[in-house]
Amino acid sequence: MTKIIELDEIKRTLPSIDLLRIMEEGFAAYSNGRTVVPPVGELVFENPPGEAHIKYGYIKEDDYYVVKIASGFYENPKLGLPSSQGLMLLFCQKSGALKAILLDNGHLTDIRTAAAGTVAAKYLAPEEVTAIGVLGAGIQARQQVLHLQSVTDCRKVFVWTRSDKGAENYLTWFADSDFDITFVSDTAEVAARCNLIVTATPSKEPLLHAADIFPGTHITAVGSDTADKVELDLEILRMADLVVSDSLVQSETRGEVFRAVEAGVLHRKDLLELGAIITRGEKARRDDTQITVADLTGVAVQDIQIAKAVFENSQSEESLDA
Amino acid sequence: MTKIIELDEIKRTLPSIDLLRIMEEGFAAYSNGRTVVPPVGELVFENPPGEAHIKYGYIKEDDYYVVKIASGFYENPKLGLPSSQGLMLLFCQKSGALKAILLDNGHLTDIRTAAAGTVAAKYLAPEEVTAIGVLGAGIQARQQVLHLQSVTDCRKVFVWTRSDKGAENYLTWFADSDFDITFVSDTAEVAARCNLIVTATPSKEPLLHAADIFPGTHITAVGSDTADKVELDLEILRMADLVVSDSLVQSETRGEVFRAVEAGVLHRKDLLELGAIITRGEKARRDDTQITVADLTGVAVQDIQIAKAVFENSQSEESLDA
Repeated sequence: MTKIIELDEIKRTLPSIDLLRIMEEGFAAYSNGRTVVPPVGELVFENPPGEAHIKYGYIKEDDYYVVKIASGFYENPKLGLPSSQGLMLLFCQKSGALKAILLDNGHLTDIRTAAAGTVAAKYLAPEEVTAIGVLGAGIQARQQVLHLQSVTDCRKVFVWTRSDKGAENYLTWFADSDFDITFVSDTAEVAARCNLIVTATPSKEPLLHAADIFPGTHITAVGSDTADKVELDLEILRMADLVVSDSLVQSETRGEVFRAVEAGVLHRKDLLELGAIITRGEKARRDDTQITVADLTGVAVQDIQIAKAVFENSQSEESLDA
Repeated sequence: MTKIIELDEIKRTLPSIDLLRIMEEGFAAYSNGRTVVPPVGELVFENPPGEAHIKYGYIKEDDYYVVKIASGFYENPKLGLPSSQGLMLLFCQKSGALKAILLDNGHLTDIRTAAAGTVAAKYLAPEEVTAIGVLGAGIQARQQVLHLQSVTDCRKVFVWTRSDKGAENYLTWFADSDFDITFVSDTAEVAARCNLIVTATPSKEPLLHAADIFPGTHITAVGSDTADKVELDLEILRMADLVVSDSLVQSETRGEVFRAVEAGVLHRKDLLELGAIITRGEKARRDDTQITVADLTGVAVQDIQIAKAVFENSQSEESLDA
């Protein structure tokens, strides 16, 4: 019997899930070699431009395997459609039976990505977060800030975006919250005012520059998940005291780390994997003057963890006899 | 709106589809570079043993892209479950929207594989098929014979299998048909009696030997779709006048051709791709004395073609607002 879990039910289920815990467990399993996560499958479309990523894998000795398809078609809003589409599939690891179809339209990818940012902040951000800086004003720029509530009391947020419409939406999202949102026109101002910065844009040019970064800053770079996207000046990765990747293997072909290693400003031996830090169980920054960077490209183990949790916590009765 | 098409409805829809035509069109598009088909994704499980294949891609300028997950857990029958599991997903190529979930449990993979065997026979088998030989008595060994009806009038079939139970089932399947089924205990007898042979076993040892093959024989090898499965003696590929692969790229890492090239008995320059033969539009064998081999490892374009056709012909009203 296959359970169908639609987006409404997924959203109803999420508050009952301890996202921080399941992401930490997932990353730890991944870094400790207890997962099977093949390279990301990728389809690129040209007319109109779009891309689909297929992430799949399993945790050894677990009950399930997961396949996630998530696409971005950036001209969709012109047609009145969301740019993110996709679903997750949960299969029994012992028989291959399809246990659940999670029709999340990319929402679980947004949430698990934000939850990974929270994990990075927990282990890498300074003890006292003075202000949260955000580059971008899209869904991920919103979700990152919302989820950071579980690891910091800071509600002061400086946002940089090129989009007036994006800024307007962003304010609406946070209208009823206790977040204090300020827009700034220069990324250097974000760097000057904030010691926890999240970059969440699809940029292909560096947005944040080394000369602007103050000691004691942690940066989580979320936007770059391919070989050609980039948000951080290479010099930031050179000057950082600590650079952490969610997946050392994936960082060989995508993300900020990939570019910095290619350019020779960063050496692979100096990298740490997020799950290894979690396993150690304590903050990875030595003091509040270090500059740290977490480069997140998104790992299938996050999809596995969130799909399992939604399936196990969902009250959905909808099912098929497949 | 996402259409859900369950197995019963898929089976009701299939008779209205011209499988031979859509497979020919698919292979031709593939060989002419009009498709995007990345390498097959693969998950291997150990306890219990199983494997899942993820095939995905699209035909350029078409309406859809397709992701297919098909697994084999060979101990499932002990639990009263079919060993094949899986589904196909059809997405809009212009927006990424999920158009249909085809809950086929591997059935469409069985059918499109059999249809590919038919295409191979159409272009490679001798003009007059004296008898059809089959190695194996499983679902694929059955479907290959059934589908060959569209390209030959021959109803005389010689089957070799190690399984008494398999033989019994096989006879039951064909009980009400006009096929004349004979079981033989030696693969050499299949080779002696038949000039169109289909091998459809999961063997890891050669079953058919060069010394037994008569001039004028065509062999379609369906069983080997990984690097370690093999049904044909390497010498058969050396002696063959023509060796055809459904995918030259896939034959670099899997199937009979892979092994023969590795062993140095076959040269890649002498290979032909099935879609190139279809494009040429005439039988590829020169006369009725040549020995020909088609090595089919299964290409995502077949999944794309069959998923599209089922979606477009299905009468299913079942849908979700995803």
